[in-house]
Amino acid sequence: MISQQYPSQLLERAVQEFSKLPGVGRKTALRLVLHLLRQEDQDVQAFVEAVSRLKHDVCYCKTCHNISDAERCPICADPRRDATTVCVVENIQDVMAVENTQQYHGLYHVLGGVISPMDGIGPSDLEIDSLVKRVEEGGVREVILALSPTMEGDTTNFYIFRKLAPYDVSISIIARGVSVGNELEYTDEVTLGRSIVNRTPFEGK
Amino acid sequence: MISQQYPSQLLERAVQEFSKLPGVGRKTALRLVLHLLRQEDQDVQAFVEAVSRLKHDVCYCKTCHNISDAERCPICADPRRDATTVCVVENIQDVMAVENTQQYHGLYHVLGGVISPMDGIGPSDLEIDSLVKRVEEGGVREVILALSPTMEGDTTNFYIFRKLAPYDVSISIIARGVSVGNELEYTDEVTLGRSIVNRTPFEGK
Repeated sequence: MISQQYPSQLLERAVQEFSKLPGVGRKTALRLVLHLLRQEDQDVQAFVEAVSRLKHDVCYCKTCHNISDAERCPICADPRRDATTVCVVENIQDVMAVENTQQYHGLYHVLGGVISPMDGIGPSDLEIDSLVKRVEEGGVREVILALSPTMEGDTTNFYIFRKLAPYDVSISIIARGVSVGNELEYTDEVTLGRSIVNRTPFEGK
Repeated sequence: MISQQYPSQLLERAVQEFSKLPGVGRKTALRLVLHLLRQEDQDVQAFVEAVSRLKHDVCYCKTCHNISDAERCPICADPRRDATTVCVVENIQDVMAVENTQQYHGLYHVLGGVISPMDGIGPSDLEIDSLVKRVEEGGVREVILALSPTMEGDTTNFYIFRKLAPYDVSISIIARGVSVGNELEYTDEVTLGRSIVNRTPFEGK
């Protein structure tokens, strides 16, 4: 495609900024920018302010490091949640994903990533020490490891497992097995193998 | 899907604003917002500023109503362009589309829409009077109508044609025919019919 010359530097600049967003090319960026240009002044103002305020005013929960508007996130602050269970996740999207299942009623601990030497991310870049401190302070009976089943996730799981070994806390990991709704014949052999080794009693319900 | 509760009002607000953009749902909006949240302060600042400045500082060319940073757009200000030919288009995207063909070297006139009684858009909402004035002032020898081949486009074409009838200017319309690269059998009968009626001499080049 011929690289397009916009008749306005301001337009060019806005399109450039939008096309830095993930999954947004120059064509989509132009569409979004022209849409904003057609909106009322106050609507564009609201858009700009929402982004700006999010970046400047957002906090992270001091306990679990989830995104929050206050020092403690609504989950940590909720007295109905089971504070003896902590689910360790990689990022705030994963908190939302687990919350969406409506199957978990404990608290979280957001690591902010996984150990990945290739990307230069070591244990000290993650919220692992604060997790150990949380366990050390007592009150936590179970730590559930809910990281992605990748090499980096497994490395991080193992690192956390060793770090928590001295403490009186049970450590579990989310089940790996066949996905609900998937065809068995297309499940990869590692997953299928695990699902056979880790079979559970059939409850016939 | 369960309607998702975000742990932060600021996040909720930003996601809401992004999901107002065309083709952006809540899931995509969340991805875009979390991407921005991970960026450096100055990068988010640059994003916000680009949008804000575009909305506040952008001008429209006094001659052709194309988007511009100054009173005259770069196309109108370019002395190498043929000022005797004016191509009438619906919006600024269409200017870019025609420019991309690299086949046109005249000027433009951006109407800002087409006549559409269903949407309450009449001739007075469009830049038609200013087009007539441009022709009246002299210097324009040909007006090329390049609106979309829809009912609204045709109505607008006819309206402009009648408005310009008193003046000594030739009026042409972009060719309608089979699309380059399309299978003939899938071309609709109106287009195919037109392409036969409006056949051009075969140049054998």
